Amino acid sequence: MKTSRAVVFEGTGRPFRCETVEIPALHEGEVLVRNEYTTLCRSDLNTFSGKRTEKTPTILGHEVVGRIEELGAGAPSSDCRGTALRVGDRITWAIYAADPSSPLARRGIPQKAPDLFKYGHEQITPTSHLHGGLAGHCLLRRHTPILRLDEGIPLPVAALINCSVATVAGSLRLAGDVRDRNVLVAGAGMLGVIACAMSRCAGANRVIALDIDAERLETARTFGADLPIQTGPGRPSPAAQLADELPDEPVIVALDYSGVPDTMEALIAALGIGGVLVLVGATYPQRPLSLSAEQMVRRLHTIKGLHNYNQTDFVAAVEFIETQHRRFPFEQLVYDRFSLNQVDEAFDYGLKSGAHRVGIRMTDPVP
Amino acid sequence: MKTSRAVVFEGTGRPFRCETVEIPALHEGEVLVRNEYTTLCRSDLNTFSGKRTEKTPTILGHEVVGRIEELGAGAPSSDCRGTALRVGDRITWAIYAADPSSPLARRGIPQKAPDLFKYGHEQITPTSHLHGGLAGHCLLRRHTPILRLDEGIPLPVAALINCSVATVAGSLRLAGDVRDRNVLVAGAGMLGVIACAMSRCAGANRVIALDIDAERLETARTFGADLPIQTGPGRPSPAAQLADELPDEPVIVALDYSGVPDTMEALIAALGIGGVLVLVGATYPQRPLSLSAEQMVRRLHTIKGLHNYNQTDFVAAVEFIETQHRRFPFEQLVYDRFSLNQVDEAFDYGLKSGAHRVGIRMTDPVP
Repeated sequence: MKTSRAVVFEGTGRPFRCETVEIPALHEGEVLVRNEYTTLCRSDLNTFSGKRTEKTPTILGHEVVGRIEELGAGAPSSDCRGTALRVGDRITWAIYAADPSSPLARRGIPQKAPDLFKYGHEQITPTSHLHGGLAGHCLLRRHTPILRLDEGIPLPVAALINCSVATVAGSLRLAGDVRDRNVLVAGAGMLGVIACAMSRCAGANRVIALDIDAERLETARTFGADLPIQTGPGRPSPAAQLADELPDEPVIVALDYSGVPDTMEALIAALGIGGVLVLVGATYPQRPLSLSAEQMVRRLHTIKGLHNYNQTDFVAAVEFIETQHRRFPFEQLVYDRFSLNQVDEAFDYGLKSGAHRVGIRMTDPVP
Repeated sequence: MKTSRAVVFEGTGRPFRCETVEIPALHEGEVLVRNEYTTLCRSDLNTFSGKRTEKTPTILGHEVVGRIEELGAGAPSSDCRGTALRVGDRITWAIYAADPSSPLARRGIPQKAPDLFKYGHEQITPTSHLHGGLAGHCLLRRHTPILRLDEGIPLPVAALINCSVATVAGSLRLAGDVRDRNVLVAGAGMLGVIACAMSRCAGANRVIALDIDAERLETARTFGADLPIQTGPGRPSPAAQLADELPDEPVIVALDYSGVPDTMEALIAALGIGGVLVLVGATYPQRPLSLSAEQMVRRLHTIKGLHNYNQTDFVAAVEFIETQHRRFPFEQLVYDRFSLNQVDEAFDYGLKSGAHRVGIRMTDPVP
C-alpha cells in the first residue's frame, strides 16, 4: 500500500499535525496527484487564525499544483480544453468538484451545486482524506475540472491559478467588456494586483488601484495599474481623488477585493452612469452596506456578487497565466522559502509579513 | 401660421392653463405630430401633486401616440425598424431625443446622454414649445427614435408603449433570460402587470406578483401572474410565503416597480443563488437600503438599476404590443373618459381612483 504525508489542521491555536496516510485504491473516475506546490490563500490564513471556521480535522491549501501519479478507471482521458491527460503531466484543478448536470451548474454556478466538494475545505473522515494542498498527494474526484499546464510556468505562479487567478477571471467575466473603460480595483492584495494585470491585458483605458498601503499600490503599478489612489485617515475620499485625476472620464467598472464596507460604498459613489461594481472580497460577517436605490436607478448602476468561479473562469485563468506570466512579476508576489515540514512557520510568516502569498514546496530541501 | 392647443402646467396646486400656440416652421430633421392620445404616467401625477418637481411652465404627458402631420427637411424617411415614414402614419416615439454618437448613447444609455431632451419634462421657452402629450401637437426633434404603429392597436394601449411598456422591456433586458425561471414582480401597478405579461410571453416558469392590494393582484393574474403574494401588516414575509409556495424552486429574477425599501429588501431576501434583482420603481428620495455584501457574494446576487430605456427596449416594446395586445386586457387598465378639455379632472381622477392609467383623447367629444 502506498502512503503519503498529510499536514492536518486541527483547530485555531493548535500546531499542525503531520501524519502518514495510506493512499486508497482509486474509485471510479478518480485521479491521484502528487502535489508539487501550494500557496496559502488569505482564507487559509483566516481559518488558521480563527477569523473563519472550517470543520476539523482538515487539510488546508487549495491553491495547489501537481503531477498526475495515477489515473483511475474511468478517469478523464483529456482535460477541460481537450488536451490528453497522462501520468506525469503537470496539472491544475478547480477548487471544486460538482456534477455538471445540476441546475446550478447548468446555470454556470457549479461552485454552489448541492453536491459541491471543495478541495482544502473538507473534513477528514474515514472515507475521505488527502483532499487539500498541504499533503504529499491529492485525490481528485469525478467532476473535478482539470487543466494540463505548460511546464514553463514557474511552480509558485502555477499554484496561484486555481483560486486567485480564476476568481479574478470570474470577476472580469461579471464586469463585462472593460476595453477602453476605466477600471477601479480596490484592494491591492493578490487578487487586486492580478485584476490590474488582467484589466490591462483586456484593453482597459485607465487601471486605477485603490489601497490604504503605499507599498501595495507600488506593486499594483508593476501589474499594470497606472493611477494609484491611496485611502486612509486625512486623505480625500476616493471619489474626490478620482474627480481630480479623471475629471472627464468616469469609472465604468469597479472590482472590490477589499471586503471593507467603507471601501465598497466609496466605489459605488465613484462609479459613473451605467457602471458595474463586482463584489468579491466581502466573504466575512460585517456591517451592512447603505445603498441608495434611487441613485442605483437614476445612475443605472449594477452590483454583482461573486464567490469562487466556474469552469469558464478556470480556463480563462490558465490562458491568462500561460500567455502573460512573463509580462508581470508574479514570482515576486510569492515568498518561496518553506517546505511541507515548515507549515507552522509558513502560516506564522503569512500572518505577520504582509506578503501577498507564502508558498510551500512539497519537496525537501527547498532549492 | 398654423396653431395648436397646449395645456400648460404651471406648478402644484395651480389649475392647468389652456393656450393657443403658433406652430413654428420645422427645423432641420424635425417631425410635426398631431397627438391623438396620452395616458397619464405615475410621474405626471407625482409632478402634479408635488411629489416630484419639474421646471415650469411645462407640458406634461409623455405616454403619447399620434399621426405625422408634417415631415421637415432632413426628417427621417424611415423609422427605427426601417419602415418608411409618411404624413398620416400613426407613430409612437421615445420619451427622449439624444445624439446617438455620444459615449453614453454608444454604451446603450441614450437616456442619460448629455444632450438629452425628454418629452413631457421640458420647460417651455421662447424657442421650445409643444414638447409634451397634453397638447394638440408635438414637435419631434432630430435624434428622436420613432416607430410606425399598426393601426389595429387601440389608442389607449398604443399610448402606453413609449414609457410603461418600453421601461418594462428594459428591465427584462437587464434581467437576462427568464425562460423556465421563476420571476417575482413587485408592485402590480401598470409596469408590474406589463412585466407579468412580458415574463409570461418570454417563457418564464412561475410568474409571481407581489402587492399590498388584493385587487391589483387579481389584475396581475389576468396578465399572466400565476402566484399572488399579498404583503401587509400581519402577513408572513414574502420570503416565508414563497418558501411555502415554491419549496424547491428558487426565484431567479425579481423586478421591482414598487420603489418601496422594505419591498426591495424583501426581494433580495427571496432571491435564490445567482438571482438578479432589477430596480425600477425607486425614482424618489427614500431611506437607503440595508444590503449584506457578504450575502451578495456568497449567493452570487446581482442588483441592477434602470431608469427609462433605450432604443432596443423601445423596439421590443412595440413588438410586444403588436404581437400580444389581444392576449391580455390592456384596454381595461386605461380609464378612457377624458378629453384635452378635461385635464384638471383627469389628474384629479388619476390621483383619487387608483386606476392603472387615465387616458386623454385629443379629439372632442370622447367617443
